Amino acid sequence: MREAFDELLACLGPSGCLIGPDVPEASRTDESRTGRTLPAALLRPADVDAVSQALAICHRHRLRVVPQGGMTGLAGGANALAGEVALSLARFHGVEAVDAQAATMCVRAGTVLAVAQEAAAEAGFVFPIDYGSRGSCQIGGLVATNGGGPRVIRYGTTRANVLGLEVVLADGTVLSHLGGQLKDNTGYDLKSLFVGSEGTLGVVTRAVFRLWPKPGETYTALCALPDARAATALLAAARSAVTLSAFEALWPAYYDIGCLLAKTRPFAATPAVCILIEAEQPLEALLETAFEDGLVEDALMARSYADARAFWAVREAAGLDDALPGLMNFDVSIELQAMPAFVDGLTAAIENVFPGTRSLFFGHMGDGNLHLILHRDEMDAPTAHALDELVYERVRGEGGSVSAEHGIGTLKREWLGFSRSPAEIRTMQAIKSALDPHEIMNPGKLLTSCQS
Amino acid sequence: MREAFDELLACLGPSGCLIGPDVPEASRTDESRTGRTLPAALLRPADVDAVSQALAICHRHRLRVVPQGGMTGLAGGANALAGEVALSLARFHGVEAVDAQAATMCVRAGTVLAVAQEAAAEAGFVFPIDYGSRGSCQIGGLVATNGGGPRVIRYGTTRANVLGLEVVLADGTVLSHLGGQLKDNTGYDLKSLFVGSEGTLGVVTRAVFRLWPKPGETYTALCALPDARAATALLAAARSAVTLSAFEALWPAYYDIGCLLAKTRPFAATPAVCILIEAEQPLEALLETAFEDGLVEDALMARSYADARAFWAVREAAGLDDALPGLMNFDVSIELQAMPAFVDGLTAAIENVFPGTRSLFFGHMGDGNLHLILHRDEMDAPTAHALDELVYERVRGEGGSVSAEHGIGTLKREWLGFSRSPAEIRTMQAIKSALDPHEIMNPGKLLTSCQS
Ligand SMILES: Cc1cc2nc3c(=O)[nH]c(=O)nc-3n(C[C@H](O)[C@H](O)[C@H](O)COP(=O)(O)OP(=O)(O)OC[C@H]3O[C@@H](n4cnc5c(N)ncnc54)[C@H](O)[C@@H]3O)c2cc1C
Ligand SMILES: Cc1cc2nc3c(=O)[nH]c(=O)nc-3n(C[C@H](O)[C@H](O)[C@H](O)COP(=O)(O)OP(=O)(O)OC[C@H]3O[C@@H](n4cnc5c(N)ncnc54)[C@H](O)[C@@H]3O)c2cc1C
Repeated sequence: MREAFDELLACLGPSGCLIGPDVPEASRTDESRTGRTLPAALLRPADVDAVSQALAICHRHRLRVVPQGGMTGLAGGANALAGEVALSLARFHGVEAVDAQAATMCVRAGTVLAVAQEAAAEAGFVFPIDYGSRGSCQIGGLVATNGGGPRVIRYGTTRANVLGLEVVLADGTVLSHLGGQLKDNTGYDLKSLFVGSEGTLGVVTRAVFRLWPKPGETYTALCALPDARAATALLAAARSAVTLSAFEALWPAYYDIGCLLAKTRPFAATPAVCILIEAEQPLEALLETAFEDGLVEDALMARSYADARAFWAVREAAGLDDALPGLMNFDVSIELQAMPAFVDGLTAAIENVFPGTRSLFFGHMGDGNLHLILHRDEMDAPTAHALDELVYERVRGEGGSVSAEHGIGTLKREWLGFSRSPAEIRTMQAIKSALDPHEIMNPGKLLTSCQS
Repeated sequence: MREAFDELLACLGPSGCLIGPDVPEASRTDESRTGRTLPAALLRPADVDAVSQALAICHRHRLRVVPQGGMTGLAGGANALAGEVALSLARFHGVEAVDAQAATMCVRAGTVLAVAQEAAAEAGFVFPIDYGSRGSCQIGGLVATNGGGPRVIRYGTTRANVLGLEVVLADGTVLSHLGGQLKDNTGYDLKSLFVGSEGTLGVVTRAVFRLWPKPGETYTALCALPDARAATALLAAARSAVTLSAFEALWPAYYDIGCLLAKTRPFAATPAVCILIEAEQPLEALLETAFEDGLVEDALMARSYADARAFWAVREAAGLDDALPGLMNFDVSIELQAMPAFVDGLTAAIENVFPGTRSLFFGHMGDGNLHLILHRDEMDAPTAHALDELVYERVRGEGGSVSAEHGIGTLKREWLGFSRSPAEIRTMQAIKSALDPHEIMNPGKLLTSCQS
């Protein structure tokens, strides 16, 4: 290890290689707050060449490397295991180019999402991905987790918007495919493989994103619905009437805490289901018909940007982690038609088996993506595990996905087999072994170690 | 080989396993018409289990397998090499389910594209992919080549529309992930890896496609433009005015032969560039402004379905292969801004070096995808190779893609390195070896044999 660190220091310089006690506390854990170990060192390469050289050194010394972005991940994927070295792209940041003609943008992996969004906006475009951690998550982390969020309904996932990618493999090989062609059938789609690979196949250094035309105007409404079945019907009606850019569902417990944290309460009475709609056309006609059809009981139109922000503040519920310390976070996919019964059944089951557990449901309903937050005053490890099992068994029963958004990391590794077959997992392991034979890239994340 | 054939016969029955002289002539070559060898046998499994068993037998006997779909491919990917066995999904066909709520469709690989399109239309949806070979190409071939076509501008590529996939690996392992979730971050995106892999990683058996709402009305116009620069400007104007579902460019020589084959001549005088626009909103206002701005010299609106079909018939130029026997077919990606000069420069260079060569340019301009057909009365192999080199050198110079649509197959294998780096190609080979260690799946297609 000593020798490896000497080489890394020589390669990256003292500001590019923090060792032992110099490693900042922020490198310990992502937003899952499950990290126990401080990395043995923090590598901070400032360009692609330095990433390549640093990885080559680690590869030679079989030093295990965990890529770290903004540490906003919710699956434990960026947390180091004992003896691992963290590698952060924070010093390699900035938007390299916006091509207004092609509507694309080349961004460095260390760029904070909000910075990329602003650059896109300045050039007259919309950056396709947006979510609550925009102020600190990085493009590298966004790519590595195939970030989703409320805009997927309009612009698709991160994977659908990455037109070009640069990645450094475990041995330092640079794979650069930044042409950004919309159509390219020159062999395997390596890019899609790295998107969502959670740092286990290589380090993302740059990405070319597709940008979208800025919508003329955005219309936002908050609706109170009689039940979740009405929500699926409203979604279908909305889809054929307007271009949706968000369709977010908040179940009662989540609505209440969202109001508390946002210090605003749009509906005095808690709706059975609250829906936040955002669209590129006016919503009045749609909502009037929905009201007549009994799908909507009450609706508030945002009359200003401030109104819209207030609705979103309820939905984003910033500060939830601190309000409910030790909460558990789920991000599953469930077929839309099954969602209402799934929520009711799961709520009842949890209350039945673990009375006193708070179940907060919300989700990007338009994409079949349901979030669930569970909280208990005392959450010990066996209870947490039993809750995991209860939730994921039901997801498996519905043929759903145990992770729609945040990835597997360490927290969902045990449950990967609930959504993917043994053959699929073996195939993933074969790919991992082919690209990282000594298993130095974020081992034990997403997949069980191939060597064990 | 004898023993293997006996096992295959026992497994698939006489109608599922045609050997030697029973192999039909249609198995010899795809639409590139470059196939020289008839496969040693044609396997015709009628379900997924049979595909799996057949591959397991081939794997055990190291029998090389070339998947064959509708044989409409243009890259030689479905052509057998000596001693290879062809595997066709033609008997495993039909739409398994349309889920109108989720707007998805599960289709068997042997289904002809037009059949899938009709089933989608009957359910009130649009199938996202469409192109000229719709009457004979199969879903398996469409997935294996990541099919494109004129609708990509509206709905994206095949890869963007495949939500679930079932594939049988070289050793017979069935990888089934047909849940069709819009959002799923449970590990590596295996699906995207198989889409576009040209039969070299496994046999596609079923796919879940995203369906799209039927547009209310479709508006089609054919425009005569003063030059290709006007076309890029018109595209930008059209993008912000309407929802485009096609933006196809026809350069003069292509327009002329398209008219001849379609037996209609919308513009008497051949336009410098002819553009076919299809959109979901009326085009009059857009084209009036374009006319005033000098971007459009003349425009014809389709007043009926028959009008629109006639415009498309010129664009599709059915029968071109027979009209120009021995033609060469290119499908490159070039940055939009560079396209006008690229076409002019390349036309001049070809005329200069190989006088008497006909250069027919057309393309899905909105996606940066340019097609080129070259024809000479006498086209010998050295000339064809020199023409390939001339074209692909210029594509490389522009940082373009040597294959935007049809894939690499055998015809473009030599030129893959013009668009992908040695490191990328090595990475593809590593993946190929990991999934197909004995290299029985369509060896020598897309990639040079890993064993050589
Ligand atoms: C308030 C809040 C709201 C959120 N909302 C959403 C949401 O709506 N949708 C959603 O999808 N997620 C959401 N998240 C989760 C999280 O923000 C995203 O996963 C985010 O993209 C992670 O980015 P990061 O830079 O913080 O990555 P990190 O947490 O640092 O790392 C995440 C993973 O990516 C890997 N990684 C990081 N950088 C690189 C790199 N350069 N190369 C290779 N691997 C790398 C890490 O090893 C790790 O496995 C939310 C999180 C918070 C705290
Ligand atoms: C008139 C015409 C117009 C065309 N227009 C377009 C266009 O606009 N855009 C476009 O992208 N293409 C176009 N093509 C090319 C071609 O039609 C497509 O590539 C088509 O999708 C191939 O399908 P197929 O079933 O005929 O495949 P085949 O030609 O039989 O095979 C193509 C490749 O896929 C593999 N394959 C086939 N089936 C399977 C399977 N089940 N599992 C695994 N691998 C398999 C084969 O091994 C081969 O490598 C056109 C072709 C013609 C003749």
